[in-house]
Amino acid sequence: MKPYNVVIDFYTGDLRPGKKILRRVSDIKKMCYDEKAAEELIQNGDPLVYEAIYADVPEEEGQLGHCTTIIYPGKVGKEYFLTKGHYHAKTGTAEIYFCLCGQGRLIMESMDGDCEILEMFPSSASYIPPFWSHRTMNTGTEPLIFYCIFPAEAGHDYSTIEEKGYPKLIVEENGEVTIIDNPKRRNR
Amino acid sequence: MKPYNVVIDFYTGDLRPGKKILRRVSDIKKMCYDEKAAEELIQNGDPLVYEAIYADVPEEEGQLGHCTTIIYPGKVGKEYFLTKGHYHAKTGTAEIYFCLCGQGRLIMESMDGDCEILEMFPSSASYIPPFWSHRTMNTGTEPLIFYCIFPAEAGHDYSTIEEKGYPKLIVEENGEVTIIDNPKRRNR
Repeated sequence: MKPYNVVIDFYTGDLRPGKKILRRVSDIKKMCYDEKAAEELIQNGDPLVYEAIYADVPEEEGQLGHCTTIIYPGKVGKEYFLTKGHYHAKTGTAEIYFCLCGQGRLIMESMDGDCEILEMFPSSASYIPPFWSHRTMNTGTEPLIFYCIFPAEAGHDYSTIEEKGYPKLIVEENGEVTIIDNPKRRNR
Repeated sequence: MKPYNVVIDFYTGDLRPGKKILRRVSDIKKMCYDEKAAEELIQNGDPLVYEAIYADVPEEEGQLGHCTTIIYPGKVGKEYFLTKGHYHAKTGTAEIYFCLCGQGRLIMESMDGDCEILEMFPSSASYIPPFWSHRTMNTGTEPLIFYCIFPAEAGHDYSTIEEKGYPKLIVEENGEVTIIDNPKRRNR
């Protein structure tokens, strides 16, 4: 394997050369507090919620996966547009989110049930320790853009979060970013 | 261990909270092609060549080390200010350099003796694969600032590069960034 450069646009999050995945409201419907509002959005064009653009790296120990994520501004009901959220399949692996543009929140939960929320803003680099699940939301009016780096063999476990949800939700109330308890939280 | 934020200034490379190490000409003298020019600089105030500012992370498998590096503009003789250069002590570990400001070059050598040079410029993210040593130089007139991410257990082996050097040098000739063969290169 040879060294290589990718180029990351600080203002659009474009990463070249890279492989893009798109997530629409239909992809995150099950993760939304207000599934009825999600269904209405899906019927009305199923808007794009986020994109991730991955650089090419072998999924092997010692390698580092890296990608950009662009979460568009928007809400499902009163809940800010969010990523699916996941544990790593290899749970004992960390991740770093380096924010380039926009405003957001990063919610994390440890396997012991501790919940932490960090702010994301241009120049914040958030450290997600091993064994913490993670989800991000765009709480601003511009795209939230961040660069993600993780051990390349980390993998994704989406199902735990899909079933349990997080203890807290990040919603807009009276025009303010507000943290509320998640009434749909399930303990497995 | 809890999640945390550090804040990285895109324009100065400051990382807070972080732990700074400083490297002066006296620290890189043995890596310089022109040791006499290095000695003169040391006698004339021993200028600062680069700084690295490390975020606090346990040096354990699954964790990610991260730091910023700021290489100041300057030359030792005709050779651009450079970092010591190293292999990882755990050789099979990658590293990413995400350039925020300035202009530079990244020279790398595989354990098979292949040599590659990449340009660094704002928005370039350079992928250093496992088993490649790496050194950076500031070829511009402003500080070269980049954010580095690596498996936290990677460690440093400086001695191999100190003894062997790289096959190529990056120097200024007639005001241009020029790659020349390294006459001091040693094969171990």
